[in-house]
Amino acid sequence: MESVEVNLGKNGYEIIVGESILPQLGKVISKLGKFNKVAIVTDVNVADLYLECTEHTFFTQGYLVSALRIPDGEKTKNWQNLEIVVEWILENKIDRDDLIVALGGGVLGDLVGFAASILRRGLPYIQVPTTLLAQVDSSVGGKTAINSNFGKNLIGTFFQPKLVFADTQTLLTLNTRQFLAGLSEVIKYGLIRDKNFFEWIECNLHAIANREAETLSKLIIWSCKIKAEVVKNDEKENGERALLNLGHTFGHALESFCGYSDKLLHGEAVSIGTVIAFQFANSLGICSSKDTDRLLALYKKLGMKYHMDHMEVKLPEVKVMVDFMKQDKKVKNGRLVFILPRSIGHCTIMDNISSQSLYKFLESKCL
Amino acid sequence: MESVEVNLGKNGYEIIVGESILPQLGKVISKLGKFNKVAIVTDVNVADLYLECTEHTFFTQGYLVSALRIPDGEKTKNWQNLEIVVEWILENKIDRDDLIVALGGGVLGDLVGFAASILRRGLPYIQVPTTLLAQVDSSVGGKTAINSNFGKNLIGTFFQPKLVFADTQTLLTLNTRQFLAGLSEVIKYGLIRDKNFFEWIECNLHAIANREAETLSKLIIWSCKIKAEVVKNDEKENGERALLNLGHTFGHALESFCGYSDKLLHGEAVSIGTVIAFQFANSLGICSSKDTDRLLALYKKLGMKYHMDHMEVKLPEVKVMVDFMKQDKKVKNGRLVFILPRSIGHCTIMDNISSQSLYKFLESKCL
Repeated sequence: MESVEVNLGKNGYEIIVGESILPQLGKVISKLGKFNKVAIVTDVNVADLYLECTEHTFFTQGYLVSALRIPDGEKTKNWQNLEIVVEWILENKIDRDDLIVALGGGVLGDLVGFAASILRRGLPYIQVPTTLLAQVDSSVGGKTAINSNFGKNLIGTFFQPKLVFADTQTLLTLNTRQFLAGLSEVIKYGLIRDKNFFEWIECNLHAIANREAETLSKLIIWSCKIKAEVVKNDEKENGERALLNLGHTFGHALESFCGYSDKLLHGEAVSIGTVIAFQFANSLGICSSKDTDRLLALYKKLGMKYHMDHMEVKLPEVKVMVDFMKQDKKVKNGRLVFILPRSIGHCTIMDNISSQSLYKFLESKCL
Repeated sequence: MESVEVNLGKNGYEIIVGESILPQLGKVISKLGKFNKVAIVTDVNVADLYLECTEHTFFTQGYLVSALRIPDGEKTKNWQNLEIVVEWILENKIDRDDLIVALGGGVLGDLVGFAASILRRGLPYIQVPTTLLAQVDSSVGGKTAINSNFGKNLIGTFFQPKLVFADTQTLLTLNTRQFLAGLSEVIKYGLIRDKNFFEWIECNLHAIANREAETLSKLIIWSCKIKAEVVKNDEKENGERALLNLGHTFGHALESFCGYSDKLLHGEAVSIGTVIAFQFANSLGICSSKDTDRLLALYKKLGMKYHMDHMEVKLPEVKVMVDFMKQDKKVKNGRLVFILPRSIGHCTIMDNISSQSLYKFLESKCL
């Protein structure tokens, strides 16, 4: 077991990473604080794989355990499931001395974290992420959300968990597509502020693709350290934290256009969106095309999606794409905010880009 | 115009109180900050009375204004209306540079404040309370909520408004029942920590009942000062703030039992619940029955509800009542927390009361 601290004062917590550590979760929780009951929320797929083990680790520590299974997939992050989770927890009389456990991927974690934040104005919860994307990104930093008809993650809160507990063993049951989708967030950390990490990934492609335990642990810890540092400096995203959205302004628009379906996973939208961000930065003359080529080479070697042609839908028209982008939370005064690379390891936040440059770029380059 | 500061650091704000000040709201907002669009949410009754004036005050300051009307009444605080308000605001592309206005009573303010808190992880909003209950209580302090099938206000957040703007003129259109319901929260402030205020109310019954402008302003400012002080010391209710729940543990159970209907208004539940709290404190020997009699005398003179017989429903059985009470947010380790008086102007938080004493009291005294 290794750990990373997320230093947020009284909202701070630990990220624990290790191989086959799930059976020790109950013991770790007992050291964390005094809780009575444990309410586990998970999705139907994860339940088949890990619910029994998770329930057992709490049973053996003497907790009263209840569990709820909800559907999986991005569409689960909606009003209906939020209501189901919240009312189930209330029905089970979970209060401030109990613990909510979000066991699953990013979708499940976002939804359950949101539910915890609005239950009795905030109940303690932990994240037990079981996908790469969740372990390196969505479970860390306290962003919770469901989707709206008008855009992704538009409804939610900032609400930090009491612990993030990532068992790398769970990554072995991911299919390749899910695993690669998670890697796009990993690579993002290198791109936004750590060229060394990007180069380490380039040098360890084989071990990463083979999901070797030690390499996975290192990759997750390194990612979480970068994320924890960014979140510490800017918990509520008034500045620097926006860097974590590299590739997301374009990516969210694509996801929204695909109706948040399995046609395009979040991580896939991010890698495609990141390439668009690099190309846009090239067109504005703030980033060299050599860096774009280097990034593309990495995506290709790993077998990741990097072009809109890789989406299983007809491409949107430029105006439609921009409309979807304008539903982004980062919109200020109706003006889009872009996270753009200057080079690998160095990104910048720009809110002064003219609509003209954007339209010109989108029309010429991509669509 | 008079004002009270709510000192909560970067979450702090002003409560502005005055007679016929609604037409000046647009100007006040322009001084508060730079906002682009204004989205007003109100209920159908309040819309008929004050929406035109509210829209006008923003129009004249050059804001783009949109408005949504929702139904009135406690049942409005549900999932369905939360979704309607949130999605309407997203559809109108309201972002972090715009302003949401909650125009109405406590129900509307709780619902719209909650919506604002979860929209894009928090959008700026102001409270324009139009009932006595909202002006002295629910609009101040940032508690937002909707109701669950399992209890009142169980789903919500702490989220402070940018301003509370209370026009006493709006109180003249309240019917007597609503006005008296609001008075029960006013009297509560005297009971929990200001005997002088309680005595001032006793001495000004006539002017209060006649809703004389100066008396109303003084009563609202005094109430808000007490609430602001309590909230400042304990924004998230880890301690002292629980005092504001005097009468609410019993009261919420009664409301819940009545299905949050017009059979029992929140303020009515609070005055009945406060009498029960006094009687319970008498039975435990921590408060003299003289104080209870004095409180009852005040309620009677004002024509307020003070006994469960005043509810338009068959009384619940003791076990049912206790079950409803156990859904209270203040439950710790399954143990009820009571706010009980020691005397008028001095209340205390108790979490060590045996079920036995509670059952014995409820069976003998009330039900």
